[in-house]
Amino acid sequence: MILYNNAVSGNCYKVRLLFAHLGIECEMREVDVVDRSKRPDILGGLNPALRVPTLVLDDGRPLAESGAILWYAGEGSRFVPDDRYARAQALQWMFFEQYEHEPAIAVARFLIGYSQLPRGQYEKRLPRLWADGARALDTMERHLSGRDWLVGDAMTVADIALYAYTHAAEEGEFELGGYDAIRRWLARVAAEPGHVPMSR
Amino acid sequence: MILYNNAVSGNCYKVRLLFAHLGIECEMREVDVVDRSKRPDILGGLNPALRVPTLVLDDGRPLAESGAILWYAGEGSRFVPDDRYARAQALQWMFFEQYEHEPAIAVARFLIGYSQLPRGQYEKRLPRLWADGARALDTMERHLSGRDWLVGDAMTVADIALYAYTHAAEEGEFELGGYDAIRRWLARVAAEPGHVPMSR
Repeated sequence: MILYNNAVSGNCYKVRLLFAHLGIECEMREVDVVDRSKRPDILGGLNPALRVPTLVLDDGRPLAESGAILWYAGEGSRFVPDDRYARAQALQWMFFEQYEHEPAIAVARFLIGYSQLPRGQYEKRLPRLWADGARALDTMERHLSGRDWLVGDAMTVADIALYAYTHAAEEGEFELGGYDAIRRWLARVAAEPGHVPMSR
Repeated sequence: MILYNNAVSGNCYKVRLLFAHLGIECEMREVDVVDRSKRPDILGGLNPALRVPTLVLDDGRPLAESGAILWYAGEGSRFVPDDRYARAQALQWMFFEQYEHEPAIAVARFLIGYSQLPRGQYEKRLPRLWADGARALDTMERHLSGRDWLVGDAMTVADIALYAYTHAAEEGEFELGGYDAIRRWLARVAAEPGHVPMSR
């Protein structure tokens, strides 16, 4: 399989982390996240939204959206629950991540750390992103207080999906110091056998 | 089951439409989408993000996020494909809807049609929402040209998820006239036996 990947994209890291746990090998092709001008040529026939990650299966069929790739690779493994309600709960957290968490935390991190724009060009957007991101983190903190994992009693694709940008939130100038349950959960995910960091 | 619902929310309509096709009955409890002050009392223990739809199962367990509810109710029916790759494709379009489509099209529609705000208060946001929404519609149009359904050869939860706000896009001042494939697909979804409109 081929994974159209970017080394600093949390959405791509989710896929790399699950693949590492599952021992799935694939060819990596790096796609720029700042200069997007080549994307129509590279991804045009594969992913209508021109985003990474995009996975191409051995038979050439493409699959886009990090959550859908996690589901495809994770079904049948210990990372997608057997129980129907637990499966739906995992999807609940993955949709939460894409709707409430990523558009704030990943965007602030990208603007500050990777966009190569002068701060004056995006500074006005930050207070709103910080407020939205803090609300998403508050939601996670309440949920993780008194439990080890987002769903059930073991790590699932939901934990992988939310770990990616949460563990890098400080690059977006989010302060994780007060989030005790989140910090314990981040350490728990990183301590799983087979874990790989975002960059190596 | 109890569905915390709002009559004009497309996210809630997705659930009502699938339930109608599946013959699932549930008790509806209406939640205001303009005055959100009562949400912590109503939804606080059920949905950490305080959004509708929120489903409460017969045994009291809650489930949030429209996509997760569609998956929970649809698994095992003709609306969730049997094939693993097709299932992942359905999720791909459902994540696309929540990340690229809904934040533009649903938000423009809400501001213009339902927010009760004077237009001057949100007018500056509209050009960006229209541009983002048009990009999502262009993506759908390209994909639907030459095929009847988003995934495979029958209606799935992906079509239900994207129908909800696409069919109401003109309320957000999106012009669907030039989108021939989308308009034919909208008519196809509405012609399915068991279809229910958003309001009735």
